[in-house]
Amino acid sequence: MEGSDLLAVAQQRQAQVDGVLDRFFSLAKNRASAFGQEYVELWEVLETNTVGGKRFRPRMVFTAYQALGGEDLEAAAYVGAAFELLHTALIVHDDVIDHDFIRRGIPNVSGSYRDRALAKGASERAAEHKGVSAAVIAGDLALFNAYRLIDRSGVNDVTRIRLVEVMDDALFASAAGELIDMDFSHLVDMPRVDDILTMERLKTAVYSFECPLQAGAILAGASEDVVATLADFGREIGVAYQIVDDLLGVFGKEADTGKTTIGDLREGKRTVLISYATSTREWAEIEVLIGKPDLAEDEAERVREVLISSGARSFAEGLARYYGNRALARLAEPHIPLALRLELHPVADAVLGRVK
Amino acid sequence: MEGSDLLAVAQQRQAQVDGVLDRFFSLAKNRASAFGQEYVELWEVLETNTVGGKRFRPRMVFTAYQALGGEDLEAAAYVGAAFELLHTALIVHDDVIDHDFIRRGIPNVSGSYRDRALAKGASERAAEHKGVSAAVIAGDLALFNAYRLIDRSGVNDVTRIRLVEVMDDALFASAAGELIDMDFSHLVDMPRVDDILTMERLKTAVYSFECPLQAGAILAGASEDVVATLADFGREIGVAYQIVDDLLGVFGKEADTGKTTIGDLREGKRTVLISYATSTREWAEIEVLIGKPDLAEDEAERVREVLISSGARSFAEGLARYYGNRALARLAEPHIPLALRLELHPVADAVLGRVK
Repeated sequence: MEGSDLLAVAQQRQAQVDGVLDRFFSLAKNRASAFGQEYVELWEVLETNTVGGKRFRPRMVFTAYQALGGEDLEAAAYVGAAFELLHTALIVHDDVIDHDFIRRGIPNVSGSYRDRALAKGASERAAEHKGVSAAVIAGDLALFNAYRLIDRSGVNDVTRIRLVEVMDDALFASAAGELIDMDFSHLVDMPRVDDILTMERLKTAVYSFECPLQAGAILAGASEDVVATLADFGREIGVAYQIVDDLLGVFGKEADTGKTTIGDLREGKRTVLISYATSTREWAEIEVLIGKPDLAEDEAERVREVLISSGARSFAEGLARYYGNRALARLAEPHIPLALRLELHPVADAVLGRVK
Repeated sequence: MEGSDLLAVAQQRQAQVDGVLDRFFSLAKNRASAFGQEYVELWEVLETNTVGGKRFRPRMVFTAYQALGGEDLEAAAYVGAAFELLHTALIVHDDVIDHDFIRRGIPNVSGSYRDRALAKGASERAAEHKGVSAAVIAGDLALFNAYRLIDRSGVNDVTRIRLVEVMDDALFASAAGELIDMDFSHLVDMPRVDDILTMERLKTAVYSFECPLQAGAILAGASEDVVATLADFGREIGVAYQIVDDLLGVFGKEADTGKTTIGDLREGKRTVLISYATSTREWAEIEVLIGKPDLAEDEAERVREVLISSGARSFAEGLARYYGNRALARLAEPHIPLALRLELHPVADAVLGRVK
């Protein structure tokens, strides 16, 4: 397809997913109105926190589904919207765990409720408590309804059961990854590179790549070997994505990524990049700077230089390419239809293209 | 039935529900073992926090189901177990919101993880954070799997969809009630009696009485009017139960209730009992004692005396009886089969019998 056609397809898919989510939230707000305006507002805040997304997971569902010949775009939109809502639930609760009130520069659910309470004169402590409480409730509603949207996709029972199992796998893995991440945050030592890869794969890659691709294939009625290969592809490219994302968190352009390149360093985020650096002799130079809450821009620049000179950046980039190539190798398998290969190659290229 | 027969039936039902939950947790732990021992332990803690329950909600499912002629006890056990897991999810997350680490004298999920972290030398703050984080994750797993257990009940698709809608109603109402409760906790003034009743109904009564009874009736293939009347009965008796529960939180015997009769007073819990007392002229005598964190037993005794002399206790008892009688009136409706009436009368009697 031409670039303009690709864009049109992408916009059409997104519009369809947005339509499902619009209807879902309209119904929920209408239903909530019987319980009072406060409850309607909770749903509005949840909607705001869902609508802002890149619709990344629905795109994975659609990509697999349409490349495998699926034509019921409405069903795909429901399944895509279900994964989008699962994503909302997981990040809302992740922010509760991390005590974050901002996501990508905008107040999240906790932040919205905290800010409202502050504006009404609540103490900082009471306002934060209100924010976190609302986020626990909102995340529960999103999680439960992720499941409900699959129910409403109108697919037959056999397909529905398979789809729900895939979503179950997504949550099961993500919870395991969140638990490992929680243990990391209480460790004194830096975790090893492979432990970080496992954590990132479980916490994010499985539900963002592996499961939505599988779901799209199942919905299209693909054979078991195609579904399995897509899961493998998703796992590999998902890990590559996480490594690249962490690289961009330090070396990216804020205009492109929408997040600062100093936040991860100040937080001391445990990434492949940093874990590798701890094994180099240059580590002593930057050790005190990683996780320094008031890290200055010139100090951050020094860290970046050392991450380059120590070889940490090259290592992480190389590892991302390694996983990217493993993903591409799966696409080359003979049972993968050409159309699917052509659809997924750009996905892998886009992930790896973000590195440079 | 004779008392001994009733006991045998109750034990058989409980054993069947416990069997479903045993299998569910065994499978989950087995599956978790691929992700490491830490994850298996999270599931063990979640199981411990589920197993301790009174199986109250499964009993409601079975009561309606069997009285309406249902014979597939395994299906009823799955649906009952689903409501039990929903209950676990809601209390685990409620404890996150309330920053509680103990429930009924035993460490809850947050408490188990906090205590382990403390034993390993973590600071109080870090240990509490670990506890709360684990509870967010564990509650998510319980919530999602509540839904999954309905899927696994083996019922036909039409029934399954109805059951899932009822569970959806349960979560939808409970989240609304939790939100109102959260607003209460940041209020300076005492909420009105009817606002407290609404909060307690939504937060607890709907998912504990109304929905499990409806689910049992739907599972039994009951007519719509029977399902609707059971929902009404459950709503009324559920409100009565909450009022009685709050009365027992101040006037109960610890040996019977398993909770102290000073905790609610120290916490300043907003109940019908206390809300009514604020409207009496005796309130000035006890105002400073309600919500006093270090309330002494002799002060608590003074509060109890005033709650009696002011008429607050009688009012709350009268209100509980009023809702109890409204519940019984629903059972008297002509379309309610005798067997169901005979099963539910003792439920209402048991609720009201706890007052005196």
